[in-house]
Amino acid sequence: MAKNVIVGQSGGPTAVINASLAGVYETAKALGADTVYGMRYGVQGLLAGKVVALDDYLADPLQLELLQRTPSSFLGSCRFKLPDVTVQPEIYRQLFDVLERLDIGCFFYIGGNDSMDTICKLSDYARDIHSPIRFVGVPKTIDNDLEATDHTPGYGSAAKYIATVTKEVIRDSLVYDLQSVTVLEIMGRNAGWLAASAALAKGPDCEGVDFIYLPEAPFEVEDFLQQVALRQRSKSNVVVAVSEGIRTGSGTYVAELGAQLGPQDAFGHKILTGTARYLAEQVSSRLGTKARAIEFSTLQRCGSHMASRVDSTEAHAAGAAAVRAAYEGHTGEMICLVRRSSLPYQCVTHPVDIHAIANREKKVPAEWIAGGCGVTEDLLAYMRPLVQGELQPIQVQGLPRHIFLS
Amino acid sequence: MAKNVIVGQSGGPTAVINASLAGVYETAKALGADTVYGMRYGVQGLLAGKVVALDDYLADPLQLELLQRTPSSFLGSCRFKLPDVTVQPEIYRQLFDVLERLDIGCFFYIGGNDSMDTICKLSDYARDIHSPIRFVGVPKTIDNDLEATDHTPGYGSAAKYIATVTKEVIRDSLVYDLQSVTVLEIMGRNAGWLAASAALAKGPDCEGVDFIYLPEAPFEVEDFLQQVALRQRSKSNVVVAVSEGIRTGSGTYVAELGAQLGPQDAFGHKILTGTARYLAEQVSSRLGTKARAIEFSTLQRCGSHMASRVDSTEAHAAGAAAVRAAYEGHTGEMICLVRRSSLPYQCVTHPVDIHAIANREKKVPAEWIAGGCGVTEDLLAYMRPLVQGELQPIQVQGLPRHIFLS
Repeated sequence: MAKNVIVGQSGGPTAVINASLAGVYETAKALGADTVYGMRYGVQGLLAGKVVALDDYLADPLQLELLQRTPSSFLGSCRFKLPDVTVQPEIYRQLFDVLERLDIGCFFYIGGNDSMDTICKLSDYARDIHSPIRFVGVPKTIDNDLEATDHTPGYGSAAKYIATVTKEVIRDSLVYDLQSVTVLEIMGRNAGWLAASAALAKGPDCEGVDFIYLPEAPFEVEDFLQQVALRQRSKSNVVVAVSEGIRTGSGTYVAELGAQLGPQDAFGHKILTGTARYLAEQVSSRLGTKARAIEFSTLQRCGSHMASRVDSTEAHAAGAAAVRAAYEGHTGEMICLVRRSSLPYQCVTHPVDIHAIANREKKVPAEWIAGGCGVTEDLLAYMRPLVQGELQPIQVQGLPRHIFLS
Repeated sequence: MAKNVIVGQSGGPTAVINASLAGVYETAKALGADTVYGMRYGVQGLLAGKVVALDDYLADPLQLELLQRTPSSFLGSCRFKLPDVTVQPEIYRQLFDVLERLDIGCFFYIGGNDSMDTICKLSDYARDIHSPIRFVGVPKTIDNDLEATDHTPGYGSAAKYIATVTKEVIRDSLVYDLQSVTVLEIMGRNAGWLAASAALAKGPDCEGVDFIYLPEAPFEVEDFLQQVALRQRSKSNVVVAVSEGIRTGSGTYVAELGAQLGPQDAFGHKILTGTARYLAEQVSSRLGTKARAIEFSTLQRCGSHMASRVDSTEAHAAGAAAVRAAYEGHTGEMICLVRRSSLPYQCVTHPVDIHAIANREKKVPAEWIAGGCGVTEDLLAYMRPLVQGELQPIQVQGLPRHIFLS
């Protein structure tokens, strides 16, 4: 086998995507890789020849500790859908030229649905041209929407962040002896896994949120206002969690109901922020109650100061398992997390054919959604192990220390 | 002296306002107070006879540890401006009736400007009627805008939170190989202390924010766009921190320039959110660059999972010093923090006449603002000691444990 390996990160970042990178790097070195290359800005950067030798940055084990505590994607990322080989074969030739020039034996890609599509296409192409290069995917997404894996690295830390700040906001919401409604806006365009994690806030020291609305269940503004009004009869301060992607029965995003729908983002996706703001305005004007919107925003994916130890460990293990699988001859696969048991929580890695994963989307099952506005005990039992333990930041002068690629 | 004491919390909460409450409770018990009462919802609740005996909640020292790690105001709060005694003398008689019925010797109020006005008026009234009850204020505000004290408990934790998440957002902003502008909206209506703390993000591992705009300096949208455009020539990803309260030379809030200015809040203050959103929209439409707004929102004041140990310790000490001062005969004063040295950082408490504090507002001095869009080294040296050290949450099942008053 060729002596070098290459690794890239793709799609939106998470708090633990760099733990997977650390797992790839450490394991590849341990198994005898000569140079471990990193793609700058994913496959898009690779096409432009942008690669770095990771030994220059990660040789000192302290750097690996910092890497696992650094949010966002150390190597940079891209949102790039590899065109079909029948449409643009030259891109494939160009990529394989770069890989052969770098003497690459294994190619690892840490990402979500689109990234697994890249692994699928590249491994298929390698088989067709009888290239010995092996392609293995490492799952990553806060959205938890990948098929075949019990959950995705990145989700547990986002869920821990959401549950923690939800607890804090609930305490904050009770401070005045007034009626109030707080609407929390949580990421999730099509899948409600993240919004569901707000349910973890409930416990002996916290009354929890009153309602949770997921994109999997149709949302009607009138029903919502009725539910809130009814709850306010028994409770002064109502706290509601909504997915940014909730839409009405007719398919309109609630965010679109607001007058000021933002522009499309750089990748042509509609920007969905404004859901909570619109609902808070409705509560305020229609129910006459003080209402505020809180967008958890980008911190859900980059709040590495609140990373879950379980999540970080699994992210590292997924990266490590990808390298081991490739060295054992696997290709065209993604490392999945297989939950053996929830109580006690035990989880192992297992490689799965990439064709069963790419371009699919795993949503919250209907039987885990309670009455259209809450989650069931089964869903709580599924989520709870994933937020356990902390990966303490390395604090320097009072702030978490990171590393970065200059 | 009467055998009991009473303590209340007022104004907006902070991450460490409950550490001051713990300091009052522990010290009053140590100095021989019989019952330590808490006012529910500040003076407003007291007028309605809403008090609790804190022994019922805090007798176990574990509860005190949890209290110091619980965000928001354990006792509840109010925004209540005590009317002048010449206007509504009956309110004063009513309050003193309640205090005498509870056999109160000392009255402590943890709060900001408005709360110190309450201490001022009540202590003046007590002198006039020859009441032996002593009134001492404990400073509290994330805004850091109280006179006479070097800084205010609550500010250091908010600054630590802002600096930490600013670092994380900066890492996140660099993830794609695209031009982008990120506008961070930070609390602060008239004083820029909080926005200034975003400057702490800069260090060997972080390029820091590009510009910081404080309410103390006039802000012009055209100048802002020019500065951003110029910076983008040398740097793809620009990150800007703005105070929610920035306004133009003619005095218009930037938030008001946006089409959708929110309604007034429950206390008649204009809601200023929307500053960052408006600026991001201007960048997007005028400069044609991907731009996003991130509101740090309520988490600045309730993010107790990121509390500064220095801040928590000082908040506790301020509460404790207030009790000691009152027991030594002081009244009509607030406990100030006096910085003896920044290097090494040493700070002590000292009671100061409340008339020098109430109803004033301390802004960032002009000589600490650099070129209208940054902060000086002197301001950094002032802030840095306040964010040092962590008060680790007590994690239970993966989430910080709090306590609450049922």
